[in-house]
Amino acid sequence: MRRAIGLAARALGATSPNPVVGCVVTDASGHRVGEGYHRRAGGPHAEVHALREAGVLARGGTAYVTLEPCDHTGRTGPCSQALIEAGISRVVYAVGDPNPQATGGADTLRAAGVEVEKGLLEAEAEAVNIAWLSSVRNGRPFVRWKYAATLDGRTAAADGTSRWITSPEARADVHRLRAEADAVLAGGGTLRADDPHLAVRGVEGPTQPLRVVLDARAEIPPTARALDDAAPTLVVVGEDADARHLPDAELLRLPLRDGRIGVRDLLDALHARGVRSVLLEGGPTLAGSFVAAGAVDQVVGYLAPVLLGDGPQALAGAGIGTIAEALRLDITETVRIGPDLRITATPKGA
Amino acid sequence: MRRAIGLAARALGATSPNPVVGCVVTDASGHRVGEGYHRRAGGPHAEVHALREAGVLARGGTAYVTLEPCDHTGRTGPCSQALIEAGISRVVYAVGDPNPQATGGADTLRAAGVEVEKGLLEAEAEAVNIAWLSSVRNGRPFVRWKYAATLDGRTAAADGTSRWITSPEARADVHRLRAEADAVLAGGGTLRADDPHLAVRGVEGPTQPLRVVLDARAEIPPTARALDDAAPTLVVVGEDADARHLPDAELLRLPLRDGRIGVRDLLDALHARGVRSVLLEGGPTLAGSFVAAGAVDQVVGYLAPVLLGDGPQALAGAGIGTIAEALRLDITETVRIGPDLRITATPKGA
Repeated sequence: MRRAIGLAARALGATSPNPVVGCVVTDASGHRVGEGYHRRAGGPHAEVHALREAGVLARGGTAYVTLEPCDHTGRTGPCSQALIEAGISRVVYAVGDPNPQATGGADTLRAAGVEVEKGLLEAEAEAVNIAWLSSVRNGRPFVRWKYAATLDGRTAAADGTSRWITSPEARADVHRLRAEADAVLAGGGTLRADDPHLAVRGVEGPTQPLRVVLDARAEIPPTARALDDAAPTLVVVGEDADARHLPDAELLRLPLRDGRIGVRDLLDALHARGVRSVLLEGGPTLAGSFVAAGAVDQVVGYLAPVLLGDGPQALAGAGIGTIAEALRLDITETVRIGPDLRITATPKGA
Repeated sequence: MRRAIGLAARALGATSPNPVVGCVVTDASGHRVGEGYHRRAGGPHAEVHALREAGVLARGGTAYVTLEPCDHTGRTGPCSQALIEAGISRVVYAVGDPNPQATGGADTLRAAGVEVEKGLLEAEAEAVNIAWLSSVRNGRPFVRWKYAATLDGRTAAADGTSRWITSPEARADVHRLRAEADAVLAGGGTLRADDPHLAVRGVEGPTQPLRVVLDARAEIPPTARALDDAAPTLVVVGEDADARHLPDAELLRLPLRDGRIGVRDLLDALHARGVRSVLLEGGPTLAGSFVAAGAVDQVVGYLAPVLLGDGPQALAGAGIGTIAEALRLDITETVRIGPDLRITATPKGA
C-alpha cells in the first residue's frame, strides 16, 4: 500500500476534478505483477493500469488500492467490474470513496465473492488525497494557505524589502505546492506591489495551475507578469468593474459584498469550473478574509531563521478580536527546508 | 562521554560562576568504576567526585571529562593534580577550557606522562555548557531570549488577552529554562501589564534564578508578584529614580542612556555579580534593545498552532529598517512541546 500511495502522489495536481489514486497488484503467491496510477481526468483509472500490466497473473491475486474502487461508469468503466473480470480474489483499499456518485465499489466486489479489506495505511492515503477528499466533503475547493515569514512573524522589513527572507530551497518547495494545486490565488494588492508570476518553475513535468487574481475594481495593469501566457489566468472582478484595459484577460465577474469579492462566491465559482484545490498566496488581508470565512483547510508556513522587529505581518483582518476567538490548529508536520522550517497545520475539528 | 554530558546537565543553573562538568572514570579494563558532576560553585569538581567513587580502581584507568580538567587552585585544588595522584593513565576531554585562569590542565597531565585526548563529542559537550563557555568568551553573561507567539507571530490578541496561547507543556518548559538560568529578566512595562512571577515552579530541586526587573523610573508597585520572597529580585533603576515606595527591594542604579538603561551597562553589572546566563523574557521593546545591542546569543521561540491576524508582536524596535540589516540565525533544534513547537536558533557567526 505504501508503494500505491507513492504512485498516487506522482499525479498530484494533474487529475482534477478526479482524486489521485495508486494501485499495486500481486499474484496469488504475493509477488508484485502490476502497478499503476491515475494520471489525468478522462484517462484510465489506477486499477486499470495495474491490471493491464499484470495480465493473466492477476487471477487469484490481490489488488492494493489507495481509494475504494469506483462503481460507476463515467468517462471510463467501473473499476469494481474490471477487478472482478480480471479474477482478482482480494481487494485491500485504504480510504472509502466519499463521492456519492462513485461509492459502492466495495459492496459490488463483495457480492461477486471478492474478499475486501478497508483501512490499511488509511491516514497516509488520506493525506495524499486530502485536497480531493476535502473538496468532496465540503462541496468547495480545498484551500491551502501558504505564507513565508521571519521567526518574529514579519513578511518584509519596515521599508517593504523582502528579497529574500526564505531560502532558494523554500522557494522551490513553493513551486511544488503550486504544481500540486489546481489554482493559485493572489489579491490585486499583492500583484500591484510585488508583481508575482504565480506560475510553476523548476518542477519536472508540471501541470500549470490556473492563476486567479482577485481584483474587485480591475486595477491591475495589463503588463502584470501573472497575465503572461506561461499559465492560464482568471481575473476576478466586481460585477460593474471597468476592465476595458484588460481586453485579453479571462474575466470572472462576481457581486461585491462590502466592496470586496465574497470568499464563498469565489470558491463556488471555482468549484463549478472543476477546481478542487486552491493555493492561497497572500497578501495578509486576503488571507484574513479566508480565515474569517472559515475557508482555510490547511496552513503551510515557511519560517526563516531571521529577526526583523518591524514590518508587515502574514495575516491581518481575520476578524479575531480576543483570544477566545483565535483559530486553533493542529501541527501535522514540521520539516527543515534548507535553513528554513516548513510547518503544516490544519484547523482543529476540520 | 555521553554519560558524562548527561551528568553535567543535571547541575544546569546551579554552578555559576562555574561551568557544568561531568566525569566518568573507568578502570584499566574499561569498566565504569566512578562518576560525578560539579554540583555547585565551591563544591568538589566532577573529577574529584568520580575519583572518590572509583578509589583505587582508578589506577591505570581512564577519565572521561566534558571539559578540560582545571589546572589552578581556586576554592578547590587543581583537578589535573588529583587525576595524576589517583594514577589515571588516560584522560579524554570534550571541550578545551577557555578560561585563562584555569586552562593548562592538559599540558600538566601530559608532562606527568598521562595520555590526553581532546574532542570526543565536542559539539554535544559544548551545547550543554553553552552559557558558561559563551560568558567566558564574551566577557558578559550569555543571553537567551525566550518568546511565545502564534504561527502568525502574535503574542496576544488585539484586546491584549493572551491566556493561554501556548500549552501547559510549553509553560512548564519555560520553568525549566528559568531554572537553568542564573537570572531572569523582564521590563517594567511587562511587569505592570502582566504582573509575572518570574520564579521557578514545578521543577524538582530548582535553584531559583535572580529575578531582574528593568524599571528606569522605578514605576513598579511594591505589590508586584516578582517582588515576593519566592526568589531574590534585583530592581534596576536609573541613577536618579525615586524608589522610596520600594523600601524592601534590592536596587541597582545605572546611568540612563536616552532615558533607558543600557544593555551593556546592565550585562556588565550582572556579570560582576557572578551572573553567567540570563533568560530574557519580554516585552518586545526590551528584546528589541538586546537585538539592537548584538546581545542575544540564543533565541528560544515557542510557537503555538494558533492564528490571530491582529495583536502585538514578540519583537519591536530592534533598529532594523531594511532586509539587508536583518539578524540572521541558524536553527539548531526544533522540538514538539505538547501541541506547540519549540524552535532554538543562534545568530550566524556567534
